Amino acid sequence: MTKSTKVNAAILIIGNEILSGRTQDTNTSTIALWLNSIGVKVQEVRVIPDIESIIVDTVNKLRKTNDYVFTTGGIGPTHDDITAESISKAFDLNYEIHKEAFKILEAYYKPGEFNDSRQKMVWMPKNANLILNPTSGAPGFSVENVFCLPGVPSILKSMIGGLKNEIVGGEPILSHTIRLKTVESEIASFLSEIQNNNKDVEIGSYPFFQAGKLGVSIVMRSEDKSKINLCSSKILELANQKKIEVVNL
Amino acid sequence: MTKSTKVNAAILIIGNEILSGRTQDTNTSTIALWLNSIGVKVQEVRVIPDIESIIVDTVNKLRKTNDYVFTTGGIGPTHDDITAESISKAFDLNYEIHKEAFKILEAYYKPGEFNDSRQKMVWMPKNANLILNPTSGAPGFSVENVFCLPGVPSILKSMIGGLKNEIVGGEPILSHTIRLKTVESEIASFLSEIQNNNKDVEIGSYPFFQAGKLGVSIVMRSEDKSKINLCSSKILELANQKKIEVVNL
Repeated sequence: MTKSTKVNAAILIIGNEILSGRTQDTNTSTIALWLNSIGVKVQEVRVIPDIESIIVDTVNKLRKTNDYVFTTGGIGPTHDDITAESISKAFDLNYEIHKEAFKILEAYYKPGEFNDSRQKMVWMPKNANLILNPTSGAPGFSVENVFCLPGVPSILKSMIGGLKNEIVGGEPILSHTIRLKTVESEIASFLSEIQNNNKDVEIGSYPFFQAGKLGVSIVMRSEDKSKINLCSSKILELANQKKIEVVNL
Repeated sequence: MTKSTKVNAAILIIGNEILSGRTQDTNTSTIALWLNSIGVKVQEVRVIPDIESIIVDTVNKLRKTNDYVFTTGGIGPTHDDITAESISKAFDLNYEIHKEAFKILEAYYKPGEFNDSRQKMVWMPKNANLILNPTSGAPGFSVENVFCLPGVPSILKSMIGGLKNEIVGGEPILSHTIRLKTVESEIASFLSEIQNNNKDVEIGSYPFFQAGKLGVSIVMRSEDKSKINLCSSKILELANQKKIEVVNL
């Protein structure tokens, strides 16, 4: 299979707890780093509340403008878990008991423990593909290019490994960071010049204050290692000329 | 002034470093908690790349459907800082030197240090209102209902205090959490009943694994304290009946 070089994704975080600020989302970073490693670029993230009409509308927008959509949250057993029903509506599919998921959870729980609330977790869009859950039994699912994962970060992490064969990425997006003991304004015009001469490399500049050190992280991202190397050498050359220390954290 | 009870906001995180997963966003939580405390509900968060057309389009969408929009990132001195220019385009305003900001930074830096790159930070939409920066000099700005803040979390935190008088919120959104040593499926049907009988309280259920304890956080949010109290007492009654331990973390 010839790899396309541009494969993109959106992440849709479903959950009032993120919008209220009570919980800090960490799933975006987990999913984005994993996607990058298999050549998929995240072009948009949205956080939306647990409201059916908003979930339906947003999924329907994002799935048309992205190669893949990953949702997190809302697939548990409680009343505020409405992702599966909303996805069914988005795709105009029946919301029904998924036989394979039922078998998995029936075997997972002790006899008598697979109660009505837990059975809610096997209601899915008709013919959804399961995403197996090695941590806590209840599977996620996908419909076409939309992949629905749980909100609990440790469970989500355990599940994305199993998705590898489902996602066809482009060239992996490579990243290299140089940390300089300087301030942004000292190197801004030079960086701007490098960026203008190297349009295929995305160059980001981020001040840092870490471990008692103050400086600027220059992050270069591209599918082409040689182009990153070229930019790196230009930056290191500048640092040398201007006697700016390169920081290793 | 009579307070409207529904005031909402969107947060727009501008930055490739969040989309790549390299940096974990913490500003959403900071801004959302602060907004909640002054009666503004965050109804949507978006993370978008450092691309002018996307910033312009997204700002123009969000500012029409929200009472307030808060952007973070992209107001520094480097080539990837394009928020101010993009906001100018979104509002069809000249992008020009802001005289007051110029004076602030001219005074902030030592003679000779206010170089071209730093001067980029005083280019703003014509007649923007400044948001003062007690940490690192360079101000943020607002145009109509759009407030532009920096991406560095410590600087952002230092600046939002100064916005208090600019934002007119509704009733503060109150929140109360009860933590139970149980699993979601044990309490799901009961919670669903409480939610159905108390539509004015947003009840969320979140499994936790913290400090070696496993349980469920039940978060109740409303502008009406008495309604939260009613739900709380129902939940504590249930816990008592079912002999479920209430966990204090």
